[in-house]
Amino acid sequence: MANFKGHALPAVFFIIFGLWWCLKYSLKYHSRRLNKNGPGNHWFSRIEITEGAVKIIFSVIGMLAEQFVPDGPHLYLYSGDPHTWMKLMNWQHTTMYLFFCISGIMDVLTYTSFQVPIGLDRLMLSVALFVEGFLFYFHVMSRPLLDQLIHSLLLIAIFGAAASVLLETFLRDNIVLELLRSSLALLQGTWLFQIGFVLFPPWGGPAWDANDHGNIMFLIMCFCWHYALAIVILAMNYAVAYRVVQKCCTNKGGTEIKLAKRKENEKSSRIALLKGSDED
Amino acid sequence: MANFKGHALPAVFFIIFGLWWCLKYSLKYHSRRLNKNGPGNHWFSRIEITEGAVKIIFSVIGMLAEQFVPDGPHLYLYSGDPHTWMKLMNWQHTTMYLFFCISGIMDVLTYTSFQVPIGLDRLMLSVALFVEGFLFYFHVMSRPLLDQLIHSLLLIAIFGAAASVLLETFLRDNIVLELLRSSLALLQGTWLFQIGFVLFPPWGGPAWDANDHGNIMFLIMCFCWHYALAIVILAMNYAVAYRVVQKCCTNKGGTEIKLAKRKENEKSSRIALLKGSDED
Amino acid sequence: MANFKGHALPAVFFIIFGLWWCLKYSLKYHSRRLNKNGPGNHWFSRIEITEGAVKIIFSVIGMLAEQFVPDGPHLYLYSGDPHTWMKLMNWQHTTMYLFFCISGIMDVLTYTSFQVPIGLDRLMLSVALFVEGFLFYFHVMSRPLLDQLIHSLLLIAIFGAAASVLLETFLRDNIVLELLRSSLALLQGTWLFQIGFVLFPPWGGPAWDANDHGNIMFLIMCFCWHYALAIVILAMNYAVAYRVVQKCCTNKGGTEIKLAKRKENEKSSRIALLKGSDED
Amino acid sequence: MANFKGHALPAVFFIIFGLWWCLKYSLKYHSRRLNKNGPGNHWFSRIEITEGAVKIIFSVIGMLAEQFVPDGPHLYLYSGDPHTWMKLMNWQHTTMYLFFCISGIMDVLTYTSFQVPIGLDRLMLSVALFVEGFLFYFHVMSRPLLDQLIHSLLLIAIFGAAASVLLETFLRDNIVLELLRSSLALLQGTWLFQIGFVLFPPWGGPAWDANDHGNIMFLIMCFCWHYALAIVILAMNYAVAYRVVQKCCTNKGGTEIKLAKRKENEKSSRIALLKGSDED
Repeated sequence: MANFKGHALPAVFFIIFGLWWCLKYSLKYHSRRLNKNGPGNHWFSRIEITEGAVKIIFSVIGMLAEQFVPDGPHLYLYSGDPHTWMKLMNWQHTTMYLFFCISGIMDVLTYTSFQVPIGLDRLMLSVALFVEGFLFYFHVMSRPLLDQLIHSLLLIAIFGAAASVLLETFLRDNIVLELLRSSLALLQGTWLFQIGFVLFPPWGGPAWDANDHGNIMFLIMCFCWHYALAIVILAMNYAVAYRVVQKCCTNKGGTEIKLAKRKENEKSSRIALLKGSDED
Repeated sequence: MANFKGHALPAVFFIIFGLWWCLKYSLKYHSRRLNKNGPGNHWFSRIEITEGAVKIIFSVIGMLAEQFVPDGPHLYLYSGDPHTWMKLMNWQHTTMYLFFCISGIMDVLTYTSFQVPIGLDRLMLSVALFVEGFLFYFHVMSRPLLDQLIHSLLLIAIFGAAASVLLETFLRDNIVLELLRSSLALLQGTWLFQIGFVLFPPWGGPAWDANDHGNIMFLIMCFCWHYALAIVILAMNYAVAYRVVQKCCTNKGGTEIKLAKRKENEKSSRIALLKGSDED
Repeated sequence: MANFKGHALPAVFFIIFGLWWCLKYSLKYHSRRLNKNGPGNHWFSRIEITEGAVKIIFSVIGMLAEQFVPDGPHLYLYSGDPHTWMKLMNWQHTTMYLFFCISGIMDVLTYTSFQVPIGLDRLMLSVALFVEGFLFYFHVMSRPLLDQLIHSLLLIAIFGAAASVLLETFLRDNIVLELLRSSLALLQGTWLFQIGFVLFPPWGGPAWDANDHGNIMFLIMCFCWHYALAIVILAMNYAVAYRVVQKCCTNKGGTEIKLAKRKENEKSSRIALLKGSDED
Repeated sequence: MANFKGHALPAVFFIIFGLWWCLKYSLKYHSRRLNKNGPGNHWFSRIEITEGAVKIIFSVIGMLAEQFVPDGPHLYLYSGDPHTWMKLMNWQHTTMYLFFCISGIMDVLTYTSFQVPIGLDRLMLSVALFVEGFLFYFHVMSRPLLDQLIHSLLLIAIFGAAASVLLETFLRDNIVLELLRSSLALLQGTWLFQIGFVLFPPWGGPAWDANDHGNIMFLIMCFCWHYALAIVILAMNYAVAYRVVQKCCTNKGGTEIKLAKRKENEKSSRIALLKGSDED
């Protein structure tokens, strides 16, 4: 992965997942509120299974690619005499994909009719993220300072996401935690791009000067900007999801009056909710 | 900010917010207990929106000031050839204000009729405080020992407040957490003043001697005194809020008898509450 | 405090508090279970107020003693020209007592009829323990290795207790947390004695040899033994409390039959409780 | 324990406990769901007592063995003049067993009819694991790098398990936490084997070369593989438990029809559950 593409590829995956999670959970949240006892749940269950399947397929492809690229280890772990390890970097990536694959399998099992306790899917996702962070941590320990700094910043996003998903094991279907997870996935994605730009500028030229204190100061600040950007993107995503669900409901009902009434109800129930949380 | 004023200005803001939060939450708590089902909630909702608006205005002014002061970067991030970074310190402060601005926007959205999930406002405030601490942390890493120590102490207040607000995301309207947050904001404010006094004595003279172990021992202890002071101020604030709400209720009812009765009820319900918490 | 007595005195206080807390909470727990709706609650409320008052008195005496012992600072913080700090060690101890005093005041206020929100008393106790640990941490940073190690072990007990009490703010009247707090207070007390024995052997002779690796290994293990001892003492304390409450109930009822019945009920409700927690 | 057997012995114990816990909690979970209000609870209570007794017996044997092996300390803590410590390593292991013994006693007391508050058994198990990790931590501090690394990885499993069990104190009978604990116990066991293989290869030859960076990279990755293996083993264990409980229920009911009905019910209640958790 020591080139720009190697950072851009996983970056794209994380960005897609961040956007997708935000969209899914926003749709779920709005459709639940506007459309109580609707047919939505069955549909969402099927979406979850599909998401799990996609995770499995992606990670299996990832594992195979890491093993069977021309300069990959081709499933050999060591060779020669005395033994030398074969392409451990590729093996590490394979390991990372393996845990996302397990997480995908658990997603599928949870939403098909097997007897898996609810919550294990989130625990497995948390473990997968923790393993990713764990491998990354030891991966960058012995690198030069600038390299180490930008990868450490990435660890904040990874471990933050792992902790947030771990909380979801116990506070399932909490929209705040779900949006937090989406934002941290997005942050991971965009920051991986940034790492690529800093260490392997795609338009040629050398990596940034690690001895320039200004560069370090800028990158620290830039990490915050990435998160601000993630928040803005998710907010727009969330607003679009609201519009879509609202439109959907109107079309179904066939009348604008129904929606107006619903809006009225929402407003009053919103006030009651805030009052309730104020009073309670 | 490398002067006394640069520390005093944010100090004043944090002190005002600490006092204000304590007053607001105390009033809310007392008025809810003395005056059930009263008209108070609508009023508090409007206060929250105003608070959010004030936060937005202050942080926008802050951002503009940091950019357009005479020696500011005027929105240029880098210049020259080869590129050199422009006034990164001002940019860092701008970044910090940006997150408080986002937090203010979320406050306003939560209490107006948009579809924002309850709890996101607290999460955003926690993120804003975390970003503040994060920038501070890297800001002081390479400073001399005394400087580093007093800024590290500040980090305890900042990250403590971030953690406390994060808990509020899940335990909303918990008066204990709200008072804790107020006290930590107050501590941040008074300690910023202390930093100003230590590093840039306003009546001239050199900064304190970093090699005197006594100075370090005193500052560590002094940090505790600041927190004790914050507790005392908040306690008085809290008592005043109680008096005000009590008076207000009496005037409304028009009779002293009503209050006396209410007091009686309070006492018995208080005992029941403590008993309940004892028994349960 | 750099002598055996200086460690023994606070040790005695912590041991007394550890034993007292265990006794109080055990009595409360048993009397609540054996004697539902009994007159006990009023009595426990008065005990809490007394405990708070004792804490205030002890800590005020502590503060005065630290200030007005012959070689104390007599309320002078600095003197001379140029300024030199006066007896900062005594001032640090005064600070520590100050927070326990605040915690005592909050205890009293919570259980008298003022409008203090329930939970603030635990928060203040947690803050007092945190401040104690905080001062200790900076206190021992620059000491020799052995000294630093045994004080670090003490910090585990102090911060453990602070965290446990912080949890009590939200999970009030949880007997498991209350016993945990008692055990950590007891551990703190006995370990302070151990520190005294190691650094200032009361029967003369030099402090233990810091260069002997065996000493360090032994002390680490010894810390665990202290905790095992604390558990055993608390278990006996708990059993005695059970006997006392049981006897008390019998004497009141005047008949052995009543007790026998109650025992029967307990057993069945116990089984139901475990079943319930199994099933739920 | 500085040989292969010394690592293999505790490894076997942890593997047995990991498998046993997974089996027990899976059986409990499935039998509760398939067989509501059945006679199972009494049976599980007896199993818990037996488990506690086995823990006590094993740890007493462990303590005696550590003390009275030919080159053990035979209960002497120090000897000679000047005093030298006797076999502190054996004493440390004795200490570790002591806490598991206390945990076993608490298990037995919780499920026999004494007045022990529910949750203390989990707290004591958490303390026992914490003490194990604590002793290990100081045990390996001054070792060479490779040795330190593989023992540090073990600490992740130990402290992870301690934290997970601590959570169980408050979230009792949470199947997700129970499976997490089982998986971490299994990980501890298999990793102890790995440590034995690395430091004391059972088929002779020298320990692995600590200067080969490849070895370190491989071991970090290998730790993840061990956890993946633990997950797979537990999943099979869990599935077998489901089959057994299902068979058991069928045999009791005597008819296949009953089971079919039950399955139908399960499916619909499962959907309701997921819907519920989706909606709530």
